[in-house]
Amino acid sequence: MGAVRNVRIQVAYDGSPFFGWQRQDGFESVQESLEEGLAALTGEVATVHGAGRTDTGVHALRQVAHVHTSTRLDDERLLPAWNAHLPDGVAITALETCDDAFHARFGATGKRYLYSVVTGRVRPPWGRAHAHFVRDALDLGAMRRAASAMVGERDFSAFANAGSPRSSNVRRLERVRIVPRRSRFAIVVEANGFLYNMARTIAGTLLLVGRGGLSADAIGEILDSGDRKAAGPTAPACGLWMLRVRYPEPTFRAAARAGRPAPGLFRS
Amino acid sequence: MGAVRNVRIQVAYDGSPFFGWQRQDGFESVQESLEEGLAALTGEVATVHGAGRTDTGVHALRQVAHVHTSTRLDDERLLPAWNAHLPDGVAITALETCDDAFHARFGATGKRYLYSVVTGRVRPPWGRAHAHFVRDALDLGAMRRAASAMVGERDFSAFANAGSPRSSNVRRLERVRIVPRRSRFAIVVEANGFLYNMARTIAGTLLLVGRGGLSADAIGEILDSGDRKAAGPTAPACGLWMLRVRYPEPTFRAAARAGRPAPGLFRS
Repeated sequence: MGAVRNVRIQVAYDGSPFFGWQRQDGFESVQESLEEGLAALTGEVATVHGAGRTDTGVHALRQVAHVHTSTRLDDERLLPAWNAHLPDGVAITALETCDDAFHARFGATGKRYLYSVVTGRVRPPWGRAHAHFVRDALDLGAMRRAASAMVGERDFSAFANAGSPRSSNVRRLERVRIVPRRSRFAIVVEANGFLYNMARTIAGTLLLVGRGGLSADAIGEILDSGDRKAAGPTAPACGLWMLRVRYPEPTFRAAARAGRPAPGLFRS
Repeated sequence: MGAVRNVRIQVAYDGSPFFGWQRQDGFESVQESLEEGLAALTGEVATVHGAGRTDTGVHALRQVAHVHTSTRLDDERLLPAWNAHLPDGVAITALETCDDAFHARFGATGKRYLYSVVTGRVRPPWGRAHAHFVRDALDLGAMRRAASAMVGERDFSAFANAGSPRSSNVRRLERVRIVPRRSRFAIVVEANGFLYNMARTIAGTLLLVGRGGLSADAIGEILDSGDRKAAGPTAPACGLWMLRVRYPEPTFRAAARAGRPAPGLFRS
């Protein structure tokens, strides 16, 4: 064992085989698979702290987590060795030693989520666990108006399901973009923090507006009401992807990397 | 029951939950799910003839099949009604009444397949059943030279595994394209017909060339040898997608359609 150091990782995972991020006895979680992989590799029992505790079925492209470890493996060796001890649905895509004080969750200053929607008259036979399918015609213009009405710093109680109690339900929703591409579109939301199920409630409310079940003009009132029942339904977990976590300092600029082709992979 | 008519369909399916296209007692197949869906809808026991009998795990974007049916439902109604009786992994995306003499398999004059490869240092946590993952650096230039050497009308015995006996192993391979896109690429092959496992053997041989395990200059000799052992391995089924089937006459131009957003789906 070497000296203890703080290591932060970027993690991609398929949420469909897991009961969410957070460790729970008897249910396979992403956190547990990372902790057990590290234990199998180094013999250490250590807690891997994630930036966000994603729900069952929610995916991540770049979740961030940190762990204090005394492994002697340097960053370049630790990344592939740890990955070799992870199940199919999880992959560490970047890893770097960081300041001892870095905390993936408490240090985060913002997050970006993507909600993926597939549209059409017939549900495609693949990708069911990775996007939400909508058969109805959707009014993207109305959805964009509703999205604009959500942006700002305000109390988002109307968009939060009961979860851990928090000192404040005020968050700054910085951006809600709707990005169509052929027969699918993404709702990309970025905020300085998200209440429980807030990203999925934003998506569910925008879809309700798109279907004509709610007027875009009603969004302001819904937010003012603070009443969860006034907003739309919580959209299904399968469509939600954690895209990135923001920190005040630059992260993973010079990290050990994996998951993308290394420069020169295609030598042609 | 109405008069018997010949109906052809375009079918999309996820190959991962099926034991291939062809009906086999005790194993769920795409053909069986289509036949049982039609039987549940109309009470008819009818054979659905596919253009190609894809293997276990192989996917299709636009497989073609035909069936003689006496349902009174017109094409516009038959499409959604039949789809409502299909399992999750199969969807009919277009349907039209056609000439009685049309035969999906014997009438086909060519097919196009796509072989999907994901590259990188770490296997992504999703999409494992829908693309083949390769960790090694690949020489796309060498792969393209090898691909060019395959094109032409010739005996493809060296690229066929033992399957149903055929009168001739001569096929015209019309095109092999390698299309890179970020950390993945597609090998698109088009021919007037494919021998058993030929598309996957072409992919496996090109990947072997890309890894440096075989010279692009050896392709001509391998073809001349007619020896299956001289070519590369059969690439895994998960990466193979049937893209389209070609017929002498135009097909599905005015068909009942589904699966893509109808015009006006996005009203914005």
